[in-house]
Amino acid sequence: MKKVVIVGGGFGGLGVARRLANQPVAVTLIDRSNHHLFQPLLYQVALAGLSPADIAVPIRSVLRHARNLQVLMGEVARIDRPTKSILLRDGSTLDYDYLVLAPGAQSGWFGHPEWAKFAFGLKNLDDALQIRSRVLLDFEAAERENDPLRRRQLLTFVIVGAGPTGVELAGSLAELSRTLLAKDFRQVAPSEPRVLLIEAGDRVLAAFDPVLSAAALASLRQLGVEVFLETRVETIDDKGVSVGGQRIPSRTVIWAAGVAASPLLRSLNLPLDPQGRIAVGPDLRVPQAPEIFVLGDAAHCEQDGALLPGLGAVAMQQAPLVGANLMALVIGQPTQPFRYRDKGAMATIGRSRAVAQFRKLRMTGLSAWLAWLAVHLLLLVGWGNRTLVFVQWCWQYLAFRSGARLITGSGVAQRGPVALEGRAAQAIADELAPGDQGPTV
Amino acid sequence: MKKVVIVGGGFGGLGVARRLANQPVAVTLIDRSNHHLFQPLLYQVALAGLSPADIAVPIRSVLRHARNLQVLMGEVARIDRPTKSILLRDGSTLDYDYLVLAPGAQSGWFGHPEWAKFAFGLKNLDDALQIRSRVLLDFEAAERENDPLRRRQLLTFVIVGAGPTGVELAGSLAELSRTLLAKDFRQVAPSEPRVLLIEAGDRVLAAFDPVLSAAALASLRQLGVEVFLETRVETIDDKGVSVGGQRIPSRTVIWAAGVAASPLLRSLNLPLDPQGRIAVGPDLRVPQAPEIFVLGDAAHCEQDGALLPGLGAVAMQQAPLVGANLMALVIGQPTQPFRYRDKGAMATIGRSRAVAQFRKLRMTGLSAWLAWLAVHLLLLVGWGNRTLVFVQWCWQYLAFRSGARLITGSGVAQRGPVALEGRAAQAIADELAPGDQGPTV
Repeated sequence: MKKVVIVGGGFGGLGVARRLANQPVAVTLIDRSNHHLFQPLLYQVALAGLSPADIAVPIRSVLRHARNLQVLMGEVARIDRPTKSILLRDGSTLDYDYLVLAPGAQSGWFGHPEWAKFAFGLKNLDDALQIRSRVLLDFEAAERENDPLRRRQLLTFVIVGAGPTGVELAGSLAELSRTLLAKDFRQVAPSEPRVLLIEAGDRVLAAFDPVLSAAALASLRQLGVEVFLETRVETIDDKGVSVGGQRIPSRTVIWAAGVAASPLLRSLNLPLDPQGRIAVGPDLRVPQAPEIFVLGDAAHCEQDGALLPGLGAVAMQQAPLVGANLMALVIGQPTQPFRYRDKGAMATIGRSRAVAQFRKLRMTGLSAWLAWLAVHLLLLVGWGNRTLVFVQWCWQYLAFRSGARLITGSGVAQRGPVALEGRAAQAIADELAPGDQGPTV
Repeated sequence: MKKVVIVGGGFGGLGVARRLANQPVAVTLIDRSNHHLFQPLLYQVALAGLSPADIAVPIRSVLRHARNLQVLMGEVARIDRPTKSILLRDGSTLDYDYLVLAPGAQSGWFGHPEWAKFAFGLKNLDDALQIRSRVLLDFEAAERENDPLRRRQLLTFVIVGAGPTGVELAGSLAELSRTLLAKDFRQVAPSEPRVLLIEAGDRVLAAFDPVLSAAALASLRQLGVEVFLETRVETIDDKGVSVGGQRIPSRTVIWAAGVAASPLLRSLNLPLDPQGRIAVGPDLRVPQAPEIFVLGDAAHCEQDGALLPGLGAVAMQQAPLVGANLMALVIGQPTQPFRYRDKGAMATIGRSRAVAQFRKLRMTGLSAWLAWLAVHLLLLVGWGNRTLVFVQWCWQYLAFRSGARLITGSGVAQRGPVALEGRAAQAIADELAPGDQGPTV
């Protein structure tokens, strides 16, 4: 039986594994974490609206029913194409006949890796819990701070990048800080917390119709978000950010501006695009290594001369085709080309406001928000989660209170997000392989 | 207006604050964390049955409606009786006219503080998340471990102490590891994980009727828990435990054997009992310092010549009386003595088994479990939580799956629990007071 290794348990990797369930191949899926994450709702965990368990599900549970699928929690150090094997960080190796790479993306810092020490990314549950703890601790500290300058620094939240993640973060953070938290904290006036959204382009949600960008901008401003367009971040440090020559004191900066593909791809020794992605052919294989498929944020995939965007929807559509093409190779049939169908896009801006586009249709306000709610609930993996999130949201919506505003240790055991990421990643690896201290990619 | 400071936001402290809501006193409640915890269900978070938000609620949210109550997140370094003030770890001080101490308890190590490096306590959400991550990581490591000795070490879980916490942990862990997790992990046979419960006394649940102890023991054994009675732990290290001259290799040891009162009480410079508690008079004041009330696990409170047990129920009953007595002092009325009414006790042993005693009534099995479920749901603070937990439990019970089996960074960023506790606590303090590096009690 042919051996298939899938790297990554996101929308892409998990989708391929599901397509290969009960097929005559032996599949191993590897992921650094033990759970699949519904990333579109990650900002809700960061802003204390949802619990981690509401948007994540153990990969093993999702795949438990197919006996040809095996799940490993581990970190891939590198890929060795000549021997068709991958090396894990714990020193063990896995051979493959076919390799599926869906490692996703990480925050890209536009040539300023040092900013990662001071700004929070938002890529996984630990990131989200860190942001949550930081925001809540900022309020706790402001509650007993008398110095006005220091108060201002504590209660100024800067979000860099006005794509869907940045817009959703800014809207929710404005709502959280100016309503819910302002009610909980006696010494913080509702007008005191500031949420700044910094965007280098000339509109928010640049991938959307300009009409919707304008509607989103209006909604953000209604919620009290200060939006700066055509503004570039010049520096980020532990005291705040500089933009357009102006200094903004802030302890909490969230980075939603750029992404870069997983550094793992470098070990393929093949040319990468500027974002670190690898170009794939129409059937989603790497032309120079036809036993390797790449999909999702790691793939540079063009269609009609244009690059496909780094959206979960693209990975979700690529996954079944990768599975089908892989099985075609196994039985000696020709592969099929991938064709992305744009089913629309949506972004929510706080409670009951959203923008959405489906083909020719443009929606804003409450109707868009209800559509957004319905689509996201339907997409959530796992029935249990879906019911629970629905109950939780209904409850929150009616009662306007949030039970998830908990500060736990994970979020505060460090000053900068990178320090923790490194430590936590290192510790996971150590846990799994106490003897190995080798380098990782 | 008289100034009241309450230390601790558990059943005791929060209960006093609620009783003082809208009374003519200025109340400040201080807690190290930002949430009140429903501790009786903490083991469910540790064993991935519930999410932190299901059993915790921000203290600020609970107390937001009474304008005379103020909440501070902070750590009390010491109490200065001569000046009637408390010193916080960040260097600030708070004056009081009346002081209410409800700081709770921590794990007590029977003269072996070094064991804290190797065994997990279970006192707060961080402890619970660490245990959860450790258990899940043990399974992940076992899944790819071929060495039988090492597998055995990974899959042997030792719980020390067979009081309610130890029994509930052991029962749930046996269920989790031999059913749910064994289904998720391909290389782990249901018979492989071992759960050992070590108890120095001659029966489990020593505070219960012997008939119920016997029933609980039978239930535990049915679930596959190996119970060792009249057995003392001799050593705990990073490779396992020694009991009765026998060596048990295990990576995961959970300590449910002893508690010690908060070290904060030492700064009162008053005699303490061997567990570090302070003796209180009938009206729950400290005889030597009549402006100080002590309740809950920190109080050595005798009734009819016997010491009251360290139960949430005791603190819950003490709280309203402390509040009433405090107001009596304010208006110059006499205080009332405390009288504990034993309303019964219950412990659950996995899914659908429990033991319960109410006055003359003794219950076991499913009926006890249903009673346990009802009582615990009714006791949960906050309506939102209650509904959610109920939905989640029903779902879990019917579907026998667990959506909370997530490994997040908090639990794995260290080897031993103490290292993290120290780091996390330090980091919280640093966050709140970057300038202060002074010692804490």
